Amino acid sequence: MIDALLSRIDALNNPTVVGLDPTLEMIPSYLREEKFAQYGKTPEAVAEMFLAFNRAILAAVQGIVPAVKPQIAFYERYGLAGLSAYEKTAALAKEMGFVVIGDIKRGDIGSTAAAYAAHIGGTEIAGERFDLWHEDFVTVNPYLGIDGIQPFIDACNKENKGIFVLVKTSNPSSSQLQDIVVDGKPVYLHVAALVDEWGRAAMGASGYSRVCAVVGAPHRAEGARVRAALPHTFFLVPGYGAQGGTAEDIRGFFDKDGRGCIVNSSRGIIAAYKKNEKYGERGFADAARDAALAMKKDIMG
Amino acid sequence: MIDALLSRIDALNNPTVVGLDPTLEMIPSYLREEKFAQYGKTPEAVAEMFLAFNRAILAAVQGIVPAVKPQIAFYERYGLAGLSAYEKTAALAKEMGFVVIGDIKRGDIGSTAAAYAAHIGGTEIAGERFDLWHEDFVTVNPYLGIDGIQPFIDACNKENKGIFVLVKTSNPSSSQLQDIVVDGKPVYLHVAALVDEWGRAAMGASGYSRVCAVVGAPHRAEGARVRAALPHTFFLVPGYGAQGGTAEDIRGFFDKDGRGCIVNSSRGIIAAYKKNEKYGERGFADAARDAALAMKKDIMG
Repeated sequence: MIDALLSRIDALNNPTVVGLDPTLEMIPSYLREEKFAQYGKTPEAVAEMFLAFNRAILAAVQGIVPAVKPQIAFYERYGLAGLSAYEKTAALAKEMGFVVIGDIKRGDIGSTAAAYAAHIGGTEIAGERFDLWHEDFVTVNPYLGIDGIQPFIDACNKENKGIFVLVKTSNPSSSQLQDIVVDGKPVYLHVAALVDEWGRAAMGASGYSRVCAVVGAPHRAEGARVRAALPHTFFLVPGYGAQGGTAEDIRGFFDKDGRGCIVNSSRGIIAAYKKNEKYGERGFADAARDAALAMKKDIMG
Repeated sequence: MIDALLSRIDALNNPTVVGLDPTLEMIPSYLREEKFAQYGKTPEAVAEMFLAFNRAILAAVQGIVPAVKPQIAFYERYGLAGLSAYEKTAALAKEMGFVVIGDIKRGDIGSTAAAYAAHIGGTEIAGERFDLWHEDFVTVNPYLGIDGIQPFIDACNKENKGIFVLVKTSNPSSSQLQDIVVDGKPVYLHVAALVDEWGRAAMGASGYSRVCAVVGAPHRAEGARVRAALPHTFFLVPGYGAQGGTAEDIRGFFDKDGRGCIVNSSRGIIAAYKKNEKYGERGFADAARDAALAMKKDIMG
C-alpha cells in the first residue's frame, strides 16, 4: 500500500491528504437543520450530517488528492452512530479510489495491540476474514515500545497495509515528552531510530518501508533532523495550514528525490467555505476543492 | 469519582478490578455455537457472545470487586457490532454499581483530545448532553504532552470523572521508550512528574487526584520508584496474574496508608474456568467469582 500511495501521489502530482475531521460547528446550517428535522437532535442526526458532508467533500477532491485521513476521534465523540459515519466514510473513500489513512493513534501492549491491528489486518471469525474498518494505513503511538507495534507490522506485511508511527507530533506541548534530550538526542530521535529498525522488515517495492513516521509541519528544524536520521522513511506531515505549518517549514521534510512525504490539511480544506464569503454555505464542497488545489500549488511550489 | 472509587474499595475491602477483555477463544463453546446459529458467523454473533459472557461475569463478581475495566480494543476488533457490546457492557456495569474504567489509551493533540474526552465528559448536541460511553475513568497516553491531556482533565473536573495516565506499562518492551534515562532519571519518572503537576488542579475530597497513573505490576522496582515520586497519586496496576505480576511485586506500589492502588486481572479471572476442570464450560462465571475471591485474598494478604 505504501507503493500504491506513492504511485497515486505521482499520478496526481500531489503529495497532500485531506483530513476528514468534521465538527458540528463546521456543518452548513441548512444541512444541520435538515438532519435535525429528520433524526431529532441526536447523535444519529450528527452522524448523517457528517456522512453527507464527507460525501460531498470526497466528490469535490476526487482526482485532485490521492488520499484522505479521517480522524476517528471526531466520530467517536458521537458514540456508535458517529463511528458508523467513520466506517461508512472510509468505505466510500476507498470505493472512490482514495488511499484511506485512519488517524486512530492506537497503542497498547501485545495482545491488545493485536486486537487493534484488526483496523488494517482484518478480523477473522470462524475462518472467514472481515475488513470492518476499510483503512489502508493507520497511525499508531509508540509509547509502549515494539510489542505494541509488532502486531501492526505483521498486519502490514500480511495484508500489504501501512502504519504511521508518531515521532514528532504537530502540537506545541509535544515538546514535554518528545523533546527531552538523552545523550544529546531528543526522545523523538530515539523513536525515529526505532521506526527505522522496525521498518526494515517491512519494505515495499518502492524502496520505502510500510512503517512510516508522523512528523508535524510546525517543527521545521525537528522535521529536518528526522529526515536526516531516516532518509528512506515515508512521512505523514500534519499541522500544515490551520495549525500554522507552511510550505517553507516542510521543505526539509522531503527526501533527496523530493518525495517521501504526504502533507495533511483538515480544517483548512473542509471548512474553507467559512474563510471566503464568495462560496456561501452551499458552496462548501467547491470551497474545499479550490482549497485543495491551492494547497497542491503551495506545496509543489 | 476517585472518591467514589476509594469508598467502594473500602466498602468491599478489595482493591482489585476485573478486566473484561473477552476473546472468541475464551467464550464457552455452547455459547459460541448458540450465537453462531442465531446470527451466523458474523461480528454481530461475536458481539452477542461477549455481551452474554460479560453479563454472567458481572453478576458473579458483583459485591466482590468494586470496579471493572473493559479493554475497548477487544471489542473494536469486531467493528461497530463489537463496540456496541462494549458500550452495553459499560452501561450494564454502571447500572449494577461497578465503577467503570474504560481502557481506551487514547491520546492526541488538543482539539482531537477534546473530542476523545467525550468518553468521560459527554457529548453536547444542541444544548443537550449525552453520555454515550458510560465510563467513570479512562486510560490516556501521555506521548503528546499536556495539550493531549488537558481536555480530559477539564472533563474530569466538570463531570467528576477520572483518568489514568500511562506512566510505566506492564509489557516487556515498555523499556524501549519509557526506561530511557535522562539526567539520571528514566522517561517514565519524567512522565510521573508531569502526572503530579497535572493532577494538582484536579484533587478529589479524599486527598487523591482525579489524575491517576498506570504502573504495571511486573515492574517491582519501577513501581516503587513511581510511588516514591508520587506519594498521593492513585495507581491502576495491570499485569498481575496472567502477565506475571505477583502480590509481592506490587507491595511497594501501595502508599503509606496501604491504599492508593487498584490491581487489575483480566484473563486470570474471566478465563479461570479454563485452568480448572472442575468448573466445566458452564461454570465459567463461578470460576470467575472464585478467582476474584482468590485474588482479593492474595492481594490483601
